[in-house]
Amino acid sequence: MTQLPNFIQKNDDGMWLVEDEENMMKISYRIDEIVYQKQSPFQHVMVVQSPNFGRMLVLDGIVQTTSLDGHIYNEMITHVPLTIHPNPKRVLIIGGGDCGAAREVTKYKEVEEIDMVEIDALVVEACKLHLTDVSGNLSDPRVNFIFADGIEYIKAKKDYYDVVIIDSSDPIGPATQLFEKSFYNNVKEALKEDGLMVCQSQSPAFHMKVLHQTYRSIQELFPISKVYTAVVPTYPGGMWSFTLGSKKYSEVDLSKLAADTKYVSPALLSQCFALPAFLQKALAE
Amino acid sequence: MTQLPNFIQKNDDGMWLVEDEENMMKISYRIDEIVYQKQSPFQHVMVVQSPNFGRMLVLDGIVQTTSLDGHIYNEMITHVPLTIHPNPKRVLIIGGGDCGAAREVTKYKEVEEIDMVEIDALVVEACKLHLTDVSGNLSDPRVNFIFADGIEYIKAKKDYYDVVIIDSSDPIGPATQLFEKSFYNNVKEALKEDGLMVCQSQSPAFHMKVLHQTYRSIQELFPISKVYTAVVPTYPGGMWSFTLGSKKYSEVDLSKLAADTKYVSPALLSQCFALPAFLQKALAE
Repeated sequence: MTQLPNFIQKNDDGMWLVEDEENMMKISYRIDEIVYQKQSPFQHVMVVQSPNFGRMLVLDGIVQTTSLDGHIYNEMITHVPLTIHPNPKRVLIIGGGDCGAAREVTKYKEVEEIDMVEIDALVVEACKLHLTDVSGNLSDPRVNFIFADGIEYIKAKKDYYDVVIIDSSDPIGPATQLFEKSFYNNVKEALKEDGLMVCQSQSPAFHMKVLHQTYRSIQELFPISKVYTAVVPTYPGGMWSFTLGSKKYSEVDLSKLAADTKYVSPALLSQCFALPAFLQKALAE
Repeated sequence: MTQLPNFIQKNDDGMWLVEDEENMMKISYRIDEIVYQKQSPFQHVMVVQSPNFGRMLVLDGIVQTTSLDGHIYNEMITHVPLTIHPNPKRVLIIGGGDCGAAREVTKYKEVEEIDMVEIDALVVEACKLHLTDVSGNLSDPRVNFIFADGIEYIKAKKDYYDVVIIDSSDPIGPATQLFEKSFYNNVKEALKEDGLMVCQSQSPAFHMKVLHQTYRSIQELFPISKVYTAVVPTYPGGMWSFTLGSKKYSEVDLSKLAADTKYVSPALLSQCFALPAFLQKALAE
């Protein structure tokens, strides 16, 4: 029998996944079953079944996405850039191992090529098999899975993509470099002259420093830079931020929005760049 | 020495407040100190000091508000109705024992009378003494503290208030009746012919049934009914909902917004009624 990782606790009251937020706050989720767990060269990869969030993808003990609300994050990181760019043909996703971002991109008929560069093949395997609510059991022929390091991959591409989506995990371990300015500069060079990029930039409530630094880097590199937010119940702090860097386009075209979304609506798209006062102030500093 | 309540756990790693969400999810907050604790006739009232949320008000083991984000909820439940009503003179707050809503209302010079009806005097005492980041150590002479049952109080008032703010705790125990249609009908009668009310209507992620029922009741009673949301990091699910019932006015006047807010901005006010697709759909059912 496989040994349980230390973030799984069993007691008289059942089995719990305990997510530790820097030893200041702990969130314990009741779970019914561990559906999948393997150690990859990069991290511990696990899918669990929980009674109120459904299936959850857990990497190194941190909840990444769930059946209940995975679509919120994945819709926000894709439909915003794809309704801003008027004619996205080549789209690159860096990270995004849960396949949910790729699934959303396939809803746009004008997209011809979707390259997904994920460092950890086991994450994709786990989600395709056991997290189909999020991954959608992706079989669209436009999607190319490339199991490689996004940092290296992007260096070789110049003037190629219309849209780059950086769907990374938290800036600890392998993902740290995905938050550095030199990486965003390589993304800029991989984009066509009217291309644009979006990255997830963490929680404004708990990781303001990361958001601030990300926004500043992108602001220095791109003529257009904007932050937008969404509410993701299973992320600490609830509110999540995304940062857009664009060479030319800045406005959402509501008429372009794909029809079958669960969270994003035209009303929501038109207001997601309206930031709370504290956040506007913090970003201006 | 006072015995610790069972939602406080002490172990080798310090002292933790454990908030139990229906035995499905548990949120543990590291705390440095219990600053205040008393049993009132209604509930266990506690103020704790935590390293990352500052002071927290805890009623029967459930976090109600914190120094870090208490202003978000209190600004959203007050500045929305006070910028919709063109001339609010008499304002009633039902609940709101942390005094934060009353504090926000005092920012409006045209308001002449602020009646705050809170059932539990100990909550007000605890917050005035130990949670001044939220309560603001309120001393505005327009504020009248009335320690009484809001259910009974409202029955005696007819055609009197311009704005009624229902700042209740969760619909368990004494607050249950504050979510019933007969109560909202009494609120309607206590309002002038052009008056309006706002209530907190729980988390759309976790308490959709309560929100749906609240919205339906208010929709049946008032010619104008609308739901708006805010992001409150320490509330489960992050997103919180508020429901407006109005006899006449429906549009926010951005020019009226008080200057010294931390969360609410004109941009945020103008978009807070834009709801995610899932919520629009759920409310229409």
